[in-house]
Amino acid sequence: MPVNLVPPKQADLLPIAGIKLGTANAGIKSTDRADLVLIQLAENTTTSAVYTQNTFCAAPVTVAKRHQNETSPCYLLINSGNANAGTGEAGLQAAQDCCQAVAELSNSSSQSVLPFSTGVIGQQLPIDKIKQALPDAIQSLTTDNWFAAAHAIMTTDIVAKAVSKQVQIDGKTITVTGMAKGSGMIRPNMATMLSYIATDAAVEQAVLDKMLANASEQSFNRITIDGDTSTNDACVLMATAKANNAIISRIDSDSGQALYQVIAEISQQLAHAVVRDGEGATKFIEIQVQQGVDTEECRQVAYTIAHSPLVKTAMFASDPNWGRILAAVGRSEIAGFDLSKVAIYLGDVCIVEGGEPAANYTEQKGQQVMDQDEITIRVELGRGGANDTVWTCDFSYDYVKINAEYRT
Amino acid sequence: MPVNLVPPKQADLLPIAGIKLGTANAGIKSTDRADLVLIQLAENTTTSAVYTQNTFCAAPVTVAKRHQNETSPCYLLINSGNANAGTGEAGLQAAQDCCQAVAELSNSSSQSVLPFSTGVIGQQLPIDKIKQALPDAIQSLTTDNWFAAAHAIMTTDIVAKAVSKQVQIDGKTITVTGMAKGSGMIRPNMATMLSYIATDAAVEQAVLDKMLANASEQSFNRITIDGDTSTNDACVLMATAKANNAIISRIDSDSGQALYQVIAEISQQLAHAVVRDGEGATKFIEIQVQQGVDTEECRQVAYTIAHSPLVKTAMFASDPNWGRILAAVGRSEIAGFDLSKVAIYLGDVCIVEGGEPAANYTEQKGQQVMDQDEITIRVELGRGGANDTVWTCDFSYDYVKINAEYRT
Repeated sequence: MPVNLVPPKQADLLPIAGIKLGTANAGIKSTDRADLVLIQLAENTTTSAVYTQNTFCAAPVTVAKRHQNETSPCYLLINSGNANAGTGEAGLQAAQDCCQAVAELSNSSSQSVLPFSTGVIGQQLPIDKIKQALPDAIQSLTTDNWFAAAHAIMTTDIVAKAVSKQVQIDGKTITVTGMAKGSGMIRPNMATMLSYIATDAAVEQAVLDKMLANASEQSFNRITIDGDTSTNDACVLMATAKANNAIISRIDSDSGQALYQVIAEISQQLAHAVVRDGEGATKFIEIQVQQGVDTEECRQVAYTIAHSPLVKTAMFASDPNWGRILAAVGRSEIAGFDLSKVAIYLGDVCIVEGGEPAANYTEQKGQQVMDQDEITIRVELGRGGANDTVWTCDFSYDYVKINAEYRT
Repeated sequence: MPVNLVPPKQADLLPIAGIKLGTANAGIKSTDRADLVLIQLAENTTTSAVYTQNTFCAAPVTVAKRHQNETSPCYLLINSGNANAGTGEAGLQAAQDCCQAVAELSNSSSQSVLPFSTGVIGQQLPIDKIKQALPDAIQSLTTDNWFAAAHAIMTTDIVAKAVSKQVQIDGKTITVTGMAKGSGMIRPNMATMLSYIATDAAVEQAVLDKMLANASEQSFNRITIDGDTSTNDACVLMATAKANNAIISRIDSDSGQALYQVIAEISQQLAHAVVRDGEGATKFIEIQVQQGVDTEECRQVAYTIAHSPLVKTAMFASDPNWGRILAAVGRSEIAGFDLSKVAIYLGDVCIVEGGEPAANYTEQKGQQVMDQDEITIRVELGRGGANDTVWTCDFSYDYVKINAEYRT
């Protein structure tokens, strides 16, 4: 079950003026749930997006990038249940056909539609089912549909992930609402599987791009479930300019910082939600690596711990088998690593100091930390002033079960 | 259960003149099985060893390296059940005390004893138990004890791993016998957890070193269970010179090649045995990556596939979910990767060609391959003439069970 993840309530998700969402059941998934989302962006909306860095990126990623370069997006079309990845030329054509279908029903150009898919890799997209369901999605377009849309983009997610926050900027109330999906094949590199965040603020394109890059770097790009990077990752940030604030032209201005703060918080909350709902997760684990020469080496150590199946199964068992953490730190391939300066903490409990087992560590102290469902592992490298943090979950029977039975 | 791994028979393991092995039950492990092995090397035995590259190497590794630099080894002392890793100064002292105890009982120097430990990390070595059991181990020293020793070094291994081969060199019958242990925390980097190979051939030190380096590079350094590199890995190759062959002074001579061939075969057979007995393994998987610019990039792609929990759980489920293989290839971070030249095969079945799903692939063909318990994944990169191969196993419920319950 998800770790301390409270499902969003319909009433908590605030509409964003200028953003309408419609959902439909295209029958792509075997379950009888909506699996198609259409997002309509008001004129003058500024849109920024980051995509997977997997070389085998999915067809919709290729098409979305191309369309975004050609014109301002008016629609985002998202389907769950089928990733349209590893589908070759036919898959590219299918992604384009989906955009064309939206364009025809809405009197827009196909280039103004960005396609997104998530689900099973390697099966052709059932384009006819999507075309048939599109009128329903258009019919249901409303600003109140974040709750339904957050559910419709789910695949192996148990809990929907969406959140809203507000901030006062220049005397105007600015609203930000975001949603995300993802619980496996999660080690985003630029963005999580799928995440959509919108605000009614007016923001210049370059500033929006910077806000998205920074926020995703400190959230979606710092989480891992299983180290596998999806072919379909995408994160989209939209600013509709409907709040009538003075346009934000610098990220380091007061208004830029105020808005960025909210976007960063929402990104991190959604990223944490993806980990909390990680496939089979029973623990939420924060790995802080401090005192590094640079953030890269901190991140490298943190990910080595976060990807260790032995650390993750020990976490699942609530077993303070800290030797596995130590072994992971030791194999992280940091040049000129001096063990005698390393300290490791499990929660507040010091387990290694000066490279040696901590004198006053007891198994009982370690067990008290491990019995929690939120655990912090902190490593001090004693090399410099850089820090980084990564979030992950444990590795349980259910992870194997979910992924062994995914297509059956 | 181990994948097609036939347990060695006592009669199949040939003694090596000049090598005696003794075992004893020191009570380190909770089970009532021998957990201590003493190997006695005849005078003039040449010994070569490679060790873990984990920075947090265990105390016995530090001591064994130091002793090997000081003098020729006369004894190897191996205990299972406790790794003496993460044990600080006390652990180093314990490893030295063990060597000293052997030295006192055998009228040798403590520097001539190499200590090895395998088992739980982070607990102090029960040195008194080992000292008490040492006389039993010495008492039982005999050339016929490879079978008992191969069992005594096991930890989570289900099946003992040992093999003998013979080759005619210069009219003499040369015998090589080797044993290994290991089934988790396996991604050796220089050597598997513990492996001991002995021959009665006469071999110069530099040639023996080269044979061990080459053979371990193509065997123990090409396997992975879970990507975790042990703190205790060691592989020792001993040549007793009792066969009265003309001393082998070049690896590229006829006699050098003949002996190397046997050592390489035994190393690979033992390495494969470690994978076949991998924790929770139900499939033995060979990953061949071909047509790379160099072997490094081939290995990088192969390990990315081999470490993917999603690929490994699909293998466990016998699910031809080849999209996961494709996604792993895509995230292996090879510079200038051209998808349109990539082909991927599952056994003999082409699943991707020219970067596209193979036209004549059917799920039925994929399923036939996946139903086997030995599966070959072959990737052609279309970039050059280099190849490399890595072996791994699948990821099952039992892997989680074994590692969640390891210390309980």
